[in-house]
Amino acid sequence: MTTTAAELDRFAAAASAAAPIWRASAAPERAGWLRALADALDAAADELVPIADRETRLGAPRLHGEVARTTGQLRLFATVVEEGSFHELIVDDADPQASPPRPELRRMLVGVGPVAVFAASNFPFAFSVCGGDTASALAAGNPVIVKAHSGHPELSRRTAEIAVAALAAAGAPAGSFALVEGREAGNALVQHAAIRAAGFTGSVAGGRALFDLASGRPDPIPFYGELGSVNPVVLTPAAVAARGAELARGLVGSFTLGAGQFCTKPGVVFVPEGSGFEDEVAAVVGAAHGGPLLTDRITGAFPSGIAQLEADPATAVLGFGAETTDGARPVVLTTDAEAVTARPDALLAEVFGPVTLLVRYAGEAALHAALRVVPGSLTATLHAEQDDDVAETLELLQERAGRVLFAGWPTGVAVTWSQQHGGPWPATTSLHTSVGATAIRRFLRPVAFQDAPSRLLPEVLRDEALTLLPHRRNGVLVLP
Amino acid sequence: MTTTAAELDRFAAAASAAAPIWRASAAPERAGWLRALADALDAAADELVPIADRETRLGAPRLHGEVARTTGQLRLFATVVEEGSFHELIVDDADPQASPPRPELRRMLVGVGPVAVFAASNFPFAFSVCGGDTASALAAGNPVIVKAHSGHPELSRRTAEIAVAALAAAGAPAGSFALVEGREAGNALVQHAAIRAAGFTGSVAGGRALFDLASGRPDPIPFYGELGSVNPVVLTPAAVAARGAELARGLVGSFTLGAGQFCTKPGVVFVPEGSGFEDEVAAVVGAAHGGPLLTDRITGAFPSGIAQLEADPATAVLGFGAETTDGARPVVLTTDAEAVTARPDALLAEVFGPVTLLVRYAGEAALHAALRVVPGSLTATLHAEQDDDVAETLELLQERAGRVLFAGWPTGVAVTWSQQHGGPWPATTSLHTSVGATAIRRFLRPVAFQDAPSRLLPEVLRDEALTLLPHRRNGVLVLP
Repeated sequence: MTTTAAELDRFAAAASAAAPIWRASAAPERAGWLRALADALDAAADELVPIADRETRLGAPRLHGEVARTTGQLRLFATVVEEGSFHELIVDDADPQASPPRPELRRMLVGVGPVAVFAASNFPFAFSVCGGDTASALAAGNPVIVKAHSGHPELSRRTAEIAVAALAAAGAPAGSFALVEGREAGNALVQHAAIRAAGFTGSVAGGRALFDLASGRPDPIPFYGELGSVNPVVLTPAAVAARGAELARGLVGSFTLGAGQFCTKPGVVFVPEGSGFEDEVAAVVGAAHGGPLLTDRITGAFPSGIAQLEADPATAVLGFGAETTDGARPVVLTTDAEAVTARPDALLAEVFGPVTLLVRYAGEAALHAALRVVPGSLTATLHAEQDDDVAETLELLQERAGRVLFAGWPTGVAVTWSQQHGGPWPATTSLHTSVGATAIRRFLRPVAFQDAPSRLLPEVLRDEALTLLPHRRNGVLVLP
Repeated sequence: MTTTAAELDRFAAAASAAAPIWRASAAPERAGWLRALADALDAAADELVPIADRETRLGAPRLHGEVARTTGQLRLFATVVEEGSFHELIVDDADPQASPPRPELRRMLVGVGPVAVFAASNFPFAFSVCGGDTASALAAGNPVIVKAHSGHPELSRRTAEIAVAALAAAGAPAGSFALVEGREAGNALVQHAAIRAAGFTGSVAGGRALFDLASGRPDPIPFYGELGSVNPVVLTPAAVAARGAELARGLVGSFTLGAGQFCTKPGVVFVPEGSGFEDEVAAVVGAAHGGPLLTDRITGAFPSGIAQLEADPATAVLGFGAETTDGARPVVLTTDAEAVTARPDALLAEVFGPVTLLVRYAGEAALHAALRVVPGSLTATLHAEQDDDVAETLELLQERAGRVLFAGWPTGVAVTWSQQHGGPWPATTSLHTSVGATAIRRFLRPVAFQDAPSRLLPEVLRDEALTLLPHRRNGVLVLP
């Protein structure tokens, strides 16, 4: 099923007509639309999860959890809208004594206009039709047109129907939401004159192609893509000595979670040479389970990615997970830091699925040389002990990643005010987050009003509204 | 004088080495560096202004004022650094009861790394070597490499020498600042692996070429360009009736200010048909002065831009300013809204210099149709009276511009917390501002620390620092 150019034009025209209404919508109204969408999805979970399971094979428990994560995310953004900081209200009163005399200026962030969202395959709810990009774009005050992922077409259509109905029932304008299908429609969407920004989660190749289309427009638009990430982990000798077995269990659990199909999967692990950590991993990986992969493309790419790594003269297979008749079998490979430093492109390409690469390092110099060539990542994890001197390692990790962890494993991504899910290229095309409250910032633009009569200002910029909202006035932050 | 590839590599390596020091610098230290730079420029004003005047012919009074604006801007950013909101500190405490258990997350914005700044010709201080892009990039905690504008090479070199010396004397690391010259060096700069973001002020053609280089890198970087803007002005019939003569004088003063070489020059003015406003303008424009233009290229482009407009069958010349033997003579042309709506590319191209186009409109429908095709602009100005119904006009203006004015003229750009100097393409390549406190946001990236021991956190994220800084904790904004 492919959306035609005429259908896309119709969706885009409706979104353009809806944009001023979304932009001007008051907080209670907009928050209500988001909560209505969340409620409708929760109510439909028992219908949607079986469709999702049939199309993605991720299993009902995980998928029910993901629906809850998705609706929780919509509700968090409703709270963000009500709290009001996202407007970044700033007022400077006129100063006729200044030289030159200063006018009154009132600045706010407003919705950028219709947003295109490209759904991912690996989270058919949380990063798909009504996922984080959609939630943050709506919260910012924008209509959304989603390009469905071909990995779960029926789920996408049904979710979109529910979204359209829920928004309409809650009083949101026609044109608030639409779904398009097919690669051609996606390419046309990101180049459509009505679209003012795009969000994307997917592969480096797909994301780069769309980024290039967005940047190549006569009027370039921001393209917020989350593409690929190897998520380096560093273990210090002291950490392995203190808790090697626990770390091995944690790593195996994390890289096989969701059959290794998390964007935050730990894909490369720096282990101290001679620490015995490889033996610890070998001892536990055999019991780990993989599982069916999401799509035929991913299912085909996994063995060829592994084969390429295995064929490299610098690698060896450390061990496999449990045999499986249906899907990918976990596998751990090893290499050393010198090989990674010399040939990062060959050894550090992301392989989607349950595989990780242990990289032996002998001493800090070898570790740091290898860390300098690790591609930009969403996360970096450091397992160290209290007395370790990790200053330089930490410096390198925070240059390479948007989230740095000191305990646990990177595969969990809490949806909170403080979350940051982004990192240097190719983790994301921009440095902004696609998870957490601040994801809203991507779909907003600043407008300042100079010497405006109060009646012509957007409501939130008038004095009576300012007393109820966080804002800055004459340089000073003021809370309600 | 052209910077060689080897010199650029040396500057870039030094900037990369300085970047972690800038990023980690404490607020009093970093603010001190900015103030030292401001003080050194103020102290050198009597030396710099004559060089600037010789190279740009903008005149000593204007140039002295511009030095003050530039150093005031550096000092504003020192205040922004000390105030601390720019870090956007967000902390969510751990919640072991949550499902899944939530880790502790502490997020902040940090400097993105070495920044390239492309200087403009029309503000040889305020948008050049130590102008707004440089000030905001340094304030964000980044070393800067400036590409000099060829219009004022000697001033650029001397300003850069003063900047390097002042930063070194204040204790900033080597590599904090460098200057490159020549188009090739500029192209290499925006593509250099060490550069993490770029700021630009200049022409649409030049900016687009550099934007394409930045976006086409193997690892694309954000390119914040301010390119071109026609700055529409709308006069309602009631406004002309109430104060036509005053509006005519204001317009003529604004479009001829600095010989029409302001990015916020009102280039297209919608005037009610039959209102007599053209006569008011014709009556005052004859006394207006133009003047020498900035560069040979601009001097050559002005008459050919005018000739192209004049030759258009839909335009007529309304009047000229005072004759001049040295430079551009002001000129006002007229056309009508229908012609603009039909052929915006021909009639609404920005012509740099003292020219403006009056567009007659008969009724709101004609006005709105024409406004819909006005290119994205930095500013839009509406002169209306109390009883005018301007809702739809205002809606269109705020879609087309980043700053909407209701009194006065757009050529003044106050440097304040609330300023917004950006707009839809081609006004800027991104929607962010290049003037005012929030310009700092362009050169920052978010990093979150998960379950970090306090001693390994950046200082501003530790509990003892948070009590002194604006931050959000568990969803609630807290002031110091």
